Amino acid sequence: MHIDILTLFPEMFEGVLNNSILKKAQDRNLFSYDFINFRDYSANKHQKVDDYPYGGGAGMVLTPQPLFDAVEAVKEQRKTTPRVILLCPQGETYTQGKAVELSEEDHLIFLCGHYEGYDERIREHVVTDEISIGDYVLTGGELGAMVVIDSVVRLLPEALGNKRSAPEDSFSNGLLEHPHYTRPADFRGMKVPDTLLSGDHARIEEWRHQQSLYRTWQRRPDLLKEKDLTDKEKSWIEKWENNG
Amino acid sequence: MHIDILTLFPEMFEGVLNNSILKKAQDRNLFSYDFINFRDYSANKHQKVDDYPYGGGAGMVLTPQPLFDAVEAVKEQRKTTPRVILLCPQGETYTQGKAVELSEEDHLIFLCGHYEGYDERIREHVVTDEISIGDYVLTGGELGAMVVIDSVVRLLPEALGNKRSAPEDSFSNGLLEHPHYTRPADFRGMKVPDTLLSGDHARIEEWRHQQSLYRTWQRRPDLLKEKDLTDKEKSWIEKWENNG
Repeated sequence: MHIDILTLFPEMFEGVLNNSILKKAQDRNLFSYDFINFRDYSANKHQKVDDYPYGGGAGMVLTPQPLFDAVEAVKEQRKTTPRVILLCPQGETYTQGKAVELSEEDHLIFLCGHYEGYDERIREHVVTDEISIGDYVLTGGELGAMVVIDSVVRLLPEALGNKRSAPEDSFSNGLLEHPHYTRPADFRGMKVPDTLLSGDHARIEEWRHQQSLYRTWQRRPDLLKEKDLTDKEKSWIEKWENNG
Repeated sequence: MHIDILTLFPEMFEGVLNNSILKKAQDRNLFSYDFINFRDYSANKHQKVDDYPYGGGAGMVLTPQPLFDAVEAVKEQRKTTPRVILLCPQGETYTQGKAVELSEEDHLIFLCGHYEGYDERIREHVVTDEISIGDYVLTGGELGAMVVIDSVVRLLPEALGNKRSAPEDSFSNGLLEHPHYTRPADFRGMKVPDTLLSGDHARIEEWRHQQSLYRTWQRRPDLLKEKDLTDKEKSWIEKWENNG
């Protein structure tokens, strides 16, 4: 996979892209990235990339020309039809399902604005996917791009090596993860549940499954609405509901 | 505001914390941060911070002792009762409302695990807020911490300077932002809507309000359920619904 990042702030990305899984994925040639400073594509004599909004109002708006030209140059150079992703609060809410979908692509382009709005013509004619990583306001699209890149690259085959495998993580089975415990069994009087110390693997599996469902039921009942529950899961929930 | 970040990967943060708004906020003494490598607090002779999970399974789990001791040391040093925030997929879904709430605190501590689970006793006895930035899996808590820090610090008084003011952003009024346009009025045949060129400010305001509502109705109907709609807004929506 190749990723082109159109940004005026490449230095924001370095620490994230060159550590941990993302670093190892590059070392294994699973993905590569380039920064493209779209100011370099500005036809304006002062290399401006933004201008005042039509109709007035605070804030500046990114003009179409530099971003149109930068994306076209990248496509021309790589001879691909990439997904062109705009990070913005108006986008589709990002999910693990979308991460899986993007992980199957060969070429992604990220457009990262900063402080500013985007001219609507960029959204309509250049961008293929508008993504919001959540319902909160960030200073720019850079952090959103890093979040998407991390979640996508770790899904590439071999990216995780022998670290915890992707399917075991939260969301992969529609439930939140069960609690984890490690040594010591008693830490300042706080004890590990007996079941986990029992050595009885069937009982441990059942405890984990139940805890996973319970946590989801308590914290994220919205996730359960989208899940096909087994009869056993339904009976557990019924019991919890009856006990208040 | 002071922020302590407990992480084994401080270098991941540097580019984000030392650019743009976050850099300026430090220069203006609006916030400061420290990294705390919780491995330094490990009582284990090999400075281990993780161990195998009780009950078996893939992946390692962060042990309670180093994180308990690191958080206690920070509280003791600063004589505060900080919010202690754990980034994890099982947490409360992060929103702009939560960002506002956290922006009123004087001291935040972020716990960032990496690859691994947390011993449940850390969640129960050290952490005050478990936060998930969205329904997707990331390699560690670092990106989540950066997202929360960026969204919180930009809300501190004076943080944005004369840049676009926070209240104008998406989510602040419960609607997605309206489209923006800037020059040229005609770019490769793609034109700016006439209304925005009209100079009629009342008409422009109404167009923006309607576009903002329309975009929210199309893309994020869930946001409208939580909003008190005016009679005018209701009549617009009724019209769109009748037109399919």
